[in-house]
Order: sequence, then structure tokens, then C-alpha cells
Amino acid sequence: MKRYELHADALAQLIHSGALRAGDRMPSVRETSRARGISPSTVFAAYDLLEAQGLVHARPRSGYYVSNRQTSATDRVPAEPQPSAPRDGSSGVEISDLVFEVLGSARDPYLVPLGSAFPGPELFPLARLARCLSSGMRRLDPAAIVQSLAPGDERLRQQIALRYRLHGMAVDAAEIVTTNGAMEALNLCLEAITQPGDIVVLESPTFYAALQALERLRLRAVEITTHPREGIDLAALERALHTHPVKACWLMPTFQNPLGSTMPEERKQALVALLARHGVPLIEDDVYGELHFAPRRPPPAKAFDAQGLVLHCSSFSKCLAPGYRVGWVAAGRFAGAVQRLKLMTTLSTATPSQQALSEYLDQGGYDRHLRQLRGTLAQQQARALALIAQHFPHGTRVSRPEGGYFLWVELPPPVDALALHRAAQGQGISLAPGQVFSTDRRFSHCVRINYGHPAAARFDEALRTVGALACALGHDSQNSQEDRMLSN
Amino acid sequence: MKRYELHADALAQLIHSGALRAGDRMPSVRETSRARGISPSTVFAAYDLLEAQGLVHARPRSGYYVSNRQTSATDRVPAEPQPSAPRDGSSGVEISDLVFEVLGSARDPYLVPLGSAFPGPELFPLARLARCLSSGMRRLDPAAIVQSLAPGDERLRQQIALRYRLHGMAVDAAEIVTTNGAMEALNLCLEAITQPGDIVVLESPTFYAALQALERLRLRAVEITTHPREGIDLAALERALHTHPVKACWLMPTFQNPLGSTMPEERKQALVALLARHGVPLIEDDVYGELHFAPRRPPPAKAFDAQGLVLHCSSFSKCLAPGYRVGWVAAGRFAGAVQRLKLMTTLSTATPSQQALSEYLDQGGYDRHLRQLRGTLAQQQARALALIAQHFPHGTRVSRPEGGYFLWVELPPPVDALALHRAAQGQGISLAPGQVFSTDRRFSHCVRINYGHPAAARFDEALRTVGALACALGHDSQNSQEDRMLSN
Repeated sequence: MKRYELHADALAQLIHSGALRAGDRMPSVRETSRARGISPSTVFAAYDLLEAQGLVHARPRSGYYVSNRQTSATDRVPAEPQPSAPRDGSSGVEISDLVFEVLGSARDPYLVPLGSAFPGPELFPLARLARCLSSGMRRLDPAAIVQSLAPGDERLRQQIALRYRLHGMAVDAAEIVTTNGAMEALNLCLEAITQPGDIVVLESPTFYAALQALERLRLRAVEITTHPREGIDLAALERALHTHPVKACWLMPTFQNPLGSTMPEERKQALVALLARHGVPLIEDDVYGELHFAPRRPPPAKAFDAQGLVLHCSSFSKCLAPGYRVGWVAAGRFAGAVQRLKLMTTLSTATPSQQALSEYLDQGGYDRHLRQLRGTLAQQQARALALIAQHFPHGTRVSRPEGGYFLWVELPPPVDALALHRAAQGQGISLAPGQVFSTDRRFSHCVRINYGHPAAARFDEALRTVGALACALGHDSQNSQEDRMLSN
Repeated sequence: MKRYELHADALAQLIHSGALRAGDRMPSVRETSRARGISPSTVFAAYDLLEAQGLVHARPRSGYYVSNRQTSATDRVPAEPQPSAPRDGSSGVEISDLVFEVLGSARDPYLVPLGSAFPGPELFPLARLARCLSSGMRRLDPAAIVQSLAPGDERLRQQIALRYRLHGMAVDAAEIVTTNGAMEALNLCLEAITQPGDIVVLESPTFYAALQALERLRLRAVEITTHPREGIDLAALERALHTHPVKACWLMPTFQNPLGSTMPEERKQALVALLARHGVPLIEDDVYGELHFAPRRPPPAKAFDAQGLVLHCSSFSKCLAPGYRVGWVAAGRFAGAVQRLKLMTTLSTATPSQQALSEYLDQGGYDRHLRQLRGTLAQQQARALALIAQHFPHGTRVSRPEGGYFLWVELPPPVDALALHRAAQGQGISLAPGQVFSTDRRFSHCVRINYGHPAAARFDEALRTVGALACALGHDSQNSQEDRMLSN
């Protein structure tokens, strides 16, 4: 935690405990700076954070005051979104054009990246990784560089297996294949266990890359209702397994993208048992699992798999080394098939990247880095929730995930997410509109917001702007509805 | 050229000019070492090379003598293989099981890698690349590491475009997508322009990875007769284009794997024109193009493409940086489609690898490295041809490619390549048997031999051993034929 965050926390406790009450003047910046030996800018940053959380407000030329608890963020936390209601039946997928149109524009580096899929680069130990890259390559036997094909670097696969063991799971290095990020792992798994025309179960909403993978491989999707906190609905899934010849499930049981939902352990266990009864493999996308805010990592569904039917995919891209493109899959009984597909399509994962990760894991410090990262993301989430509570239209609902860096924001129905996305882009802000997270462009009043870019001032300002735009779009559309009613 | 090679060359010229004649004693090692100021081991290495070329032979305790020209290698260069005669019609592909069975075993690092697909690691500037990796990563803007998705690093794509211009080709960086080696480029191209069930034209024999790609994507193959020196037969190709609804060609017009054939420029031009008339895209695999022994790089077919129908795939894996997994495709009018597929399957190419290559190309020295590499490979080829001429069965035919590092060896028909592969493996030597280079396991008496591993003694010994094994297998199978005839 940074100094200003520590200071803000101390003050927040005074407010929550009642030691400071609504209307009380907060200690002045100059006093505090002198008394505590911290710089004025640190004190300002702390007040800025408390203001974002709705705990204090500034009066011009007068200082900061404790806000009225009636209007503080904690008292008007937005409700969580409703469980989704996808259409029945299976459907072909045609979503890529929309995804590329919408997200292609979000790649402009000058936008505030609320639509990004990655956390901010400043959160990663990039300089240390670069040093590991150098020392790892110095240690490398030249012969290894031409011989290191799939399944991937032996030492790194052992280290990944060790991390599974640290989380209480027995995963043998022999079933691990390293890949060009989790994206390749997920695609290889799907390709290994399906044929064109097969039916695959997805959550609703679901990560757009899963939809794109189904489209690419000419598969059909069955979308299952998903709870914003507890994940996929197992009763609905069971009905789908009875109704359709399902060949695979592609799910994110932990910190689901975009919902943020995490299935409780017993539901994960029930999921694995249900799929085992039907002999259906589970492709488990677990790229956010390490980014938990609670003390313990939620176990993946893979932890309950006795039959080798769970293909557990993850990577270092979201929590350690973006751009290095090192992911993996522990593919259970499908390990051989996945390894073959890897050899046939990309041959092997880049040696320098694998060496860097292996060296980094060897040196230690990964868990310390993860603790810092989790702390920052949790702070950022609180900040984002407070800003949304203050600035977004009345009736907005928001997820409250216990990890990761996405919020799923459900705006009051008149607000169209694509219109909001375009308006925000005009203001230098990217968003991921809800329409890209299903086969039929539903979730048209939802947006996914990335809070993993803590360049604070720009971030806060961007959230306020998006809130204002959403309010304006809501009014416009209500006005135009009234116009229509009057003209009828 | 190394010192011992220079000395061997000088002596070879004396022999070819007639200044030294059959039976003449060669200058002693001690005399030569003193007179020319070179070490005895250099002189021994030179004689070793001349012996491998069949120009001299050693007599125990007496020294080296010029060999009888009647039996010198130059007088009994094996004939080149016949043009192939693939079956007519199109066929589904089921080859992967055999490829993995045969080539999986070849990955044992203790085997002499005559079956390998890569040159020896000692031929690459790996230490310098590792330094470029370090300095490239130091120079990198942290923001770039999360934003650098497909089509790939801008600077590297500009440098690749510049190399095209050096070879007289106008290829815009905008049509270049960097990939996880050429293997990914080739697979993405094929996927971008075909649908399951489509027909794709291949050379005969063809690179097994092309067959595997067709199998994976459920495509049908039409194999076209290919000349061991001049490449694919254009008349046969034209007939196939009239007979079948061909959707794509996957060809290697330069130093074809496994034949080593290179289409003369005018045939490349005719190929591009023919395909343009039929509107058929050409996926051009050009990974060996830089490894030419003649002074000039053979232009790829892409050089004659005015319509954007040629998807030119290459990489740094075979000539500079194996294991770094940096390849690319200049995909002409299909660049957008390929970029999308890349984003959907592996997202981006590893940033550290791209940075290392970009830094290396910036610093200069690539062409100097290539000249050295070409020189070594040309020497190795001469050595391998001489050894094959001396030690392989009577009636053996061998390609004489003008670049790359493969020989295509056609053994007299009784010798079965899979049997030879197994026997060689028993002696610690890998081979690529002919059966993996076609849809129907023809070329059963051919092997592809990699001469790109100049660890000389092991290499020479291995070739002698393979020759002896082939002779033995030939005799055995003739004997068993005779046995059968006697027992009838």
C-alpha cells in the first residue's frame, strides 16, 4: 500500500468509527503534512481518494469536510446486476466483425483504457523481468534453443506444477503444455475436443474471445444463465446437457470475464461432478484466479477433477508478464492431443519468454508481487465503485467481484452501450460495450469497465465523464420517447 | 570460410588442375604446418575434408595420397532423383500419426540429428542475440508491452519491409503480420482462405507440416509432380486447376523441403500468372530463401505478384534465431483476414523476441552472418554428397540443392526408408523417412538428410553408418526376395 493510501485508510477508519462525523472539518493539509511528516501532495492524494469514495467533500477555499452519511457511497452502493436470461437453444456465432470494430478502436494508446483487457503496465515488475530474461538466456544451453519444442521448457513446466501443488492440487508436469498466452491454450483445447458443427456451452455473458473461437471453428453455442456473484446456473446447465449433445464447456468459474462472478467451492465441485456424469470436458479459463482480494486463492474447478476431464488454462499475462506471451494448459487426458496441435500450429513457445519466467520463478518474489498487485486492484475497485455510485445514472447496477480488474455495469435500460461507447471515445475514453459478450448482441445496456489502470487523476475523471455521458444518453432517450408519445 | 577450408580448397584446385595426380603423395602435415604457419590440426582438418570429398585417402603410417580419379567423388556423383509421380485426384489427409511417431523419436538430443528440421545451434549468433534481447527490452516503453498486439511490433515490421526492398520488392509494412514462427504464418494463411472440404494444391513430395495443416483443417490435397531441380510442374498444375476447384496452393518455390528444388525465375513468374488467371491464392513458404549458395538470393514468387494473391511466409528461425519464434507473412490482400485470425488465436507475438530481432537488425551484421552461414552450409553439402557417393548403395540418387540444408536421397528400391530409419535410430542417428512427405506414404525408398550440423566427426561417421545400413538392408531384402523365389 502506498503512503497516501495508508493515510486515507486511517482517516476512513476515523469516519466509520464515528470519531469524525458528518459536517466535521477534516485536518488541514498543512497541519497534517507537518504533524505526520508527509508531503502535502500525499495528503492531497489521500483526500482525493476519500472524496472518490464519497467519504469527504471539498468546499472551495475552506478545506475538506466529512460528507453526510446519507449520501456517502457506503450507504448507496448500487445493486448487483440480475442473473442473465439468455435465449434458449443453440445458435451459430457471428460476432467477430462487431468485436473487431468495437475493440479495434479501443487500442488507441491515447484513450483512457476503461475498455482494455489488461491491467496497467506500471503494475508489473517489468525491469526485473527484463533482468531475468538476460540472466536466463545466459544460462541457456545453445542446444536447447533448437530442441525446445512443445510441450515446452521442462524447468518452467516443473515450476508451474509446483505452484499447483502449493495450492493443494496434484498436477503432473507431464500434462502441462506451455502456450503463446492463455489465448492459444484455450483455442487449442477447443480444437482438440470438438469438430465443426459441435455444440459448446458458454456462460451468459461470456468473454468475447470464446465467441470468436466458436465462430472460427464453426461451432454452435448454448449460453447458460449466469449469476453475477455465483457464476453459471447448474440447474440450467443440467437441462442443457439433457437437451443438447454438448461436446464441451468453456467456462470461467473464478472472476468471470466480464461478470466477475466466482462459483463457491461446492458449486465448482458439483459442476465437475455433473460434467463427469455426462462425460463432457470442461475448458476452464482461469487467467484471473491469482488476483483474489480475499486471503486465499479460490481453487479452480480443476481441483475437483478426478477423471482428467478438466483442461485448466492460465497464463502469466494478466498477473506478471504481459507481452511475454507465456500461458499454459494442464489438459488432463487431452494433454497429448493438445501438444500435437501445438506442434502443428505454432511448434513451440518462444524460448526467451519461457527462460525469463523460469528464472523469475526460480529467484522468488512472485507471491510478494502478487500481494502488492492484489492490494492495488482492491483499492482501485473501491475507488471505481464509489465513483460509479456518485456519478452514474440512478438505477445503475454494478458487480462487486472479489478479484480481477473488471466491473460489469448495468445501466438503466434506455442507455445503449454502443452509443455510450461511441460518445466516450469522442471524449478520449475506451469502453467494452455489452453487445460483444453474447451471440445475439444482448446486454445492450451493459458495459465492462477496467479499473486496473491506477493513473488516478485521468481514471477518476474518465469515470465521471462516462457517468455524465450515461446520464445524458438516458435523458435524451427518455426525452425522445416522450417526444414520440406526444407526436402519437 | 574457415582456415582449414581455405587450405583444403587450395589443395583441391591443385588436384583438379592436374598439378597433383592420382597416387601422388600429399605434402606432410608437419611440412605444411611449418611452411604455411598453420597448426597441424588445421592441416588434418583440411585432409579430413578432402578425404570426405574422395579426393585423397590416407595410408597408415605413410600419409595422404591423391586418390585415383576413377574412384574420386567428382567422377561418380550420384544421379539426381526422378521427377515425382503422385497419384491423380484429390485425397483426404491422414498422416499426423505417422509424422509424430517417426519424428517424435527424432527429438532425442543424443541422436546425430540427420532427421532434424533445424541447422545446428552453433551456427547462430546466439550470444549476440541475447545481448540484443537485453538492450531491446531496456529501450522498450512499458506501455508498449500491453499494447503490442497483432499485427506486431511496428519497428520490426518496417525492418522486414526494408529487407524486401533490398531484394527489389515493394512490400508495405501494412501487409506484414508477425507470427510465432513461419509455422503459425502458414497455418493462419491456410485457415484464412479455405473452408473445411476445400482442395489445396501441394508439391510432391511436400513438407509434412503442410500435410498436417490440411489434415487439421479437414482440407483435401492434390499433389503435383515436382522436378528435383526445377520445382513444381506447371503443365500438371494447370491441368489440376482445370480439373479441381482448387482454393489455394501451398508451395515452396525456393529450396523446397524436402527436394531442395528451386524454380527458375521465369517459372516463378509463370506460376504467379497462372494462379492469377485462375484467381487462386499462393501460400509461399520461403523459410530457406536466404540460405542460397549462389551470390544472389533467388526472388520469391511474391516478387512477381501484382494482385496481392501471394501470401509470402518466412521467419528468422532457420537463418538467425531459432527458438525465438519470430516469423511473418506479407499476406497481400489477405493481410486483414490473417491479422484477425492471429488476434483470435494467439493475440500477439512475444514482445521480447520481437525486440531482440528488431535490435539485431538495427545494429547491422545480419548479412555478414548470413554469408558465413551460407558458406558453412555449402561446405557441409559438398562433404555430405561426397560421403553419400562413397558409402551409399550403388544406384542411390541424390538432389544437389543450391541452398538450404537438406538432401533428398533416393535409395535403390529394395531399401525401405522406415526400416532404415529404425535401424539408424538403433545406431544413434535420426533420419526423416520419405513416407512422411506425401498423403499416401509413397517415397518409401527415400530419406531426407539434414547436413546443417557441422560437428564434423560425428556427422561423417553417421553418414557412413547410414550408408552401410542401407547397403545391408538392400542385400537383406534382395536375399529375402531370392529366398521367396526359390521357395516358390
